[in-house]
Amino acid sequence: LMSMAEIGATPKGGVKRLTLTEVDQRGRQRFSEWCEALGLTVRVDAIGNMFARREGRDPKRLPVLLGSHLDSQPSGGKFDGALGVIAGLEVVRSLNDLGITTEAPIELVNWTDEEGSRFGHSLMGSGAWAGVYPLDKVYGLTDVEGVTVEQALTAIGYKGAVPAAPFPADAYFELHIEQGPILEREGRQIGIVTGAQAQVWYDAVVTGQDAHAGTTPPSARKDALVCAARIIDLVDRMMRARGEDGRGTVGQLHVLPNSRNVVPGEVRFSVEFRHPDTAEIGRLAAQFPREAGFIARDCGVGLELTELFRLAAQPFDAGCVDLVRQAAARLGLPAREIVSGAG
Amino acid sequence: LMSMAEIGATPKGGVKRLTLTEVDQRGRQRFSEWCEALGLTVRVDAIGNMFARREGRDPKRLPVLLGSHLDSQPSGGKFDGALGVIAGLEVVRSLNDLGITTEAPIELVNWTDEEGSRFGHSLMGSGAWAGVYPLDKVYGLTDVEGVTVEQALTAIGYKGAVPAAPFPADAYFELHIEQGPILEREGRQIGIVTGAQAQVWYDAVVTGQDAHAGTTPPSARKDALVCAARIIDLVDRMMRARGEDGRGTVGQLHVLPNSRNVVPGEVRFSVEFRHPDTAEIGRLAAQFPREAGFIARDCGVGLELTELFRLAAQPFDAGCVDLVRQAAARLGLPAREIVSGAG
Repeated sequence: LMSMAEIGATPKGGVKRLTLTEVDQRGRQRFSEWCEALGLTVRVDAIGNMFARREGRDPKRLPVLLGSHLDSQPSGGKFDGALGVIAGLEVVRSLNDLGITTEAPIELVNWTDEEGSRFGHSLMGSGAWAGVYPLDKVYGLTDVEGVTVEQALTAIGYKGAVPAAPFPADAYFELHIEQGPILEREGRQIGIVTGAQAQVWYDAVVTGQDAHAGTTPPSARKDALVCAARIIDLVDRMMRARGEDGRGTVGQLHVLPNSRNVVPGEVRFSVEFRHPDTAEIGRLAAQFPREAGFIARDCGVGLELTELFRLAAQPFDAGCVDLVRQAAARLGLPAREIVSGAG
Repeated sequence: LMSMAEIGATPKGGVKRLTLTEVDQRGRQRFSEWCEALGLTVRVDAIGNMFARREGRDPKRLPVLLGSHLDSQPSGGKFDGALGVIAGLEVVRSLNDLGITTEAPIELVNWTDEEGSRFGHSLMGSGAWAGVYPLDKVYGLTDVEGVTVEQALTAIGYKGAVPAAPFPADAYFELHIEQGPILEREGRQIGIVTGAQAQVWYDAVVTGQDAHAGTTPPSARKDALVCAARIIDLVDRMMRARGEDGRGTVGQLHVLPNSRNVVPGEVRFSVEFRHPDTAEIGRLAAQFPREAGFIARDCGVGLELTELFRLAAQPFDAGCVDLVRQAAARLGLPAREIVSGAG
């Protein structure tokens, strides 16, 4: 794991290993070498996903997939993604060391471009594999320099011969570092991830009127920032009304003209809510535009809300979750059920 | 006036005539030519202020100054500043046309760099003239390209021979377009400016903790933007509690890291209050840091407030104000007393 973290290492102790770059290529190369050293055969599909297979005893059993992604954000943590890939390697290494042959085959996976930070499309490799994203569309995506996904794949030699298409599998496990603070605060080592949260995301634009901060009296103001501030407070209150399972965040905000001396005429900001319960997201998505609209009306400004997307909650396979639960219990590791907030 | 507005004209109908640029030089040149055509002698002082004198009948009388500034903001209005200078020219032109010799001499003035948008120091020319800003310090100020005031003055040929030092004058009048909406809303043509408001300005930095928007539960959040939003609301409420004379503005705000998916860890913003009554500004300056501090404590974040400056209200000379009042009444123009909000 530490050896992988050297590839694209950043001064702050993280990694910068953007997908389909020369740095990503070196990471992939090292992963291949390790797989081959363990006697696994690596195949690469048309979107660059890597699968390394260890045969099982029963040829009729579907493979169990273990993996994650080797690409990172521009300032990624060294355990994010890589941990799940290396954990798979470690499982195979331990099985080899103990001379164990499993019933089902095992396939280690490195998905291409989980992060989406280069081509603006997260979960690209797994999405193309699963058929959610059409391959020709994904091939045509470009980075800021105009390089297409297909060009980048070809350049690093990872446009594979195998079609990017789903194949039957028995289960998929991905070990991932916790991206939140819950386990650390509670002193537990294992999180049993039972599913992914439901989400709704918005773009908000508040339109008021630029005005001189010194000469414009209160009654004549249409201050876009004061309205945005009250909506930010609303998002926080709506989150807290849902208790510890609620998430509500304004992470990005731009003020125009953004001058000390000018009452802001326009503010653009992002809003997102998340919750483990899809129905609760539905209620949030009904309540938020209505209450934000009341605030804008009281402030005498315009509000344009665009719902970017809404995702239902994704419960994980109960059998897989239970296996993790049993494994943690057998090893006596302090564990806790948790809904993934990432993604 | 429209001829002056051609110099540095912008597509939106305003002007961009930054101080001590080649565009400013052309404006100054045209002003000089007009002065000379009216028989006035122009002198330039060491900071580039221009004075054009028309002699009076009584050599013992001090001059009456009329003027304003020809420089503009990067996106300035075509009447701001230039109106006051051209109005002085128009007064002299009318006196010439009517063959009137005044008792006291008249001096038209163009102050250098009223706006401060190039060298970051507003009221530079008048401040250096009045001895408020030491000349050698002003000479050393640089623009974003490292050009000093002294270099810029020399480059356009306006580092004058006359020392930049105050001389006795009888009165100073400056006609200025209203920068606020009060007269227009009330349908009046003349504002009788009785003084300038008191002000207090702050820089605010809220320090929370960056966190993943999906994985960080409400109880673990230290959201700098939510705290900033509540302080913005506080500024607005404190303004409105003072009625129509109050001013309170957050005009500039930056969020870090400013990413949709991240609970903001730091927010920096400006705060300013203005009021015609200096004592009221004193009360605002006592109340604001205390209440903002309570908000930050409730939000569990740090707050650093820096008071940039505090200005007392500046009542204008009662005699001068009364002259304007009488003149408006004599001409039957609808007028209203007003405290300048600009500056």
